[in-house]
Amino acid sequence: MATFPNSPAAPVVVFDVNGTLLDLSVLDPHFARLFSHPSVREEWFHLLERLWMVTLITDAYEPFAELAEAALRMTAQKWGIALPDEEKAAILQGMKALPPFPDVAEGLAAFREAGFRLAALTNGSLATAKTLLERAELTGFFDGVFSVEQVKRYKPAREPYQLAARGMGVATAEMTMTAAHAWDIAGARAAGCKTAFLARPGKVLNPLGPVPDWQAPNLPELARKMRR
Amino acid sequence: MATFPNSPAAPVVVFDVNGTLLDLSVLDPHFARLFSHPSVREEWFHLLERLWMVTLITDAYEPFAELAEAALRMTAQKWGIALPDEEKAAILQGMKALPPFPDVAEGLAAFREAGFRLAALTNGSLATAKTLLERAELTGFFDGVFSVEQVKRYKPAREPYQLAARGMGVATAEMTMTAAHAWDIAGARAAGCKTAFLARPGKVLNPLGPVPDWQAPNLPELARKMRR
Repeated sequence: MATFPNSPAAPVVVFDVNGTLLDLSVLDPHFARLFSHPSVREEWFHLLERLWMVTLITDAYEPFAELAEAALRMTAQKWGIALPDEEKAAILQGMKALPPFPDVAEGLAAFREAGFRLAALTNGSLATAKTLLERAELTGFFDGVFSVEQVKRYKPAREPYQLAARGMGVATAEMTMTAAHAWDIAGARAAGCKTAFLARPGKVLNPLGPVPDWQAPNLPELARKMRR
Repeated sequence: MATFPNSPAAPVVVFDVNGTLLDLSVLDPHFARLFSHPSVREEWFHLLERLWMVTLITDAYEPFAELAEAALRMTAQKWGIALPDEEKAAILQGMKALPPFPDVAEGLAAFREAGFRLAALTNGSLATAKTLLERAELTGFFDGVFSVEQVKRYKPAREPYQLAARGMGVATAEMTMTAAHAWDIAGARAAGCKTAFLARPGKVLNPLGPVPDWQAPNLPELARKMRR
């Protein structure tokens, strides 16, 4: 994948990774086999979201991989099923090889060609994010990859957004956070960022939350809207 | 319902309301009719939990009833169904008439007879909590009813637990928070409370979270364990 160098003064767009660039539904067959229904994958991920939010609220940081495993164990216990070690390992390993949504490479190229500098900001670990982007052949699009583990505070706390802005050499007001999660939009806005909502399947905004500066159903369309 | 006056020096036990004393599954038929599956009731409530956690993390308090309605609208949008006003009103009104779990009256009586002073602490509004406890014929058991709206910070933030302790005239270390939610146990522990986990159906602890001081599958058994 070729890189597209842009000027250091170019506007900055930061992308969430899991669920925004990369598609977690590749894990559905594991959940369909283990549980009664593939939608348990979503239940598990929503529990994981609550677990990391509770770490923020109670000031008790735990690494992402440990929270993901805890949420998996809790989901199995709730459904009253055994969770064999090899099944658990298959899901957690699967988290390190997620495919991009089909519009992502074209969309990121459109952002680069429109003169934006791009970064990724993930609630996962830095090493996993780099592995994921490499396997998805997206690395060349990004000028920076940032993880909440560098500040030990998950999104939607303000520190990760500040980390990404600092890493890209801009103020939060000069960066646009792009995500498919309403909580990421809310957190980025609270941290002073501009925001773009990507309406991935099943993802909806909170009617009480901030209105994003842009929204679109896919990345190429978002790039067209954000191009000035 | 008779009251059971206990000494002001008696130890204090504080109970969560929705899902701990009162059974939200009474709302399942609404969700079964509106959505494909009654388990969407749980999906809705878990989304509501995330919405109130995001208000904490981004310092943007919204009243419980508005968050409950927003979560309902988001759930309908996600499932791609219309949400008629009368269906929405029926669910939100149903939240104000939840039945107690079958062990609750016997369990609260056992706590009172063992010499405890009791309180309720809810993420719902104060008026609704009082209405709910009155309709469930539980009011007489409680020396205090407290709501997060009095501090505009939801559990698991520390302020609501401090509110209940202050209201009961004790330090947080002298009160035991009883709940069926792992996040309530985590928040109460972080606020310095003792904790008791009530293992309601489908409710499980976080293996990375604090170990509660007590746990039981129902209130009478919990009262027996906590009696010294």
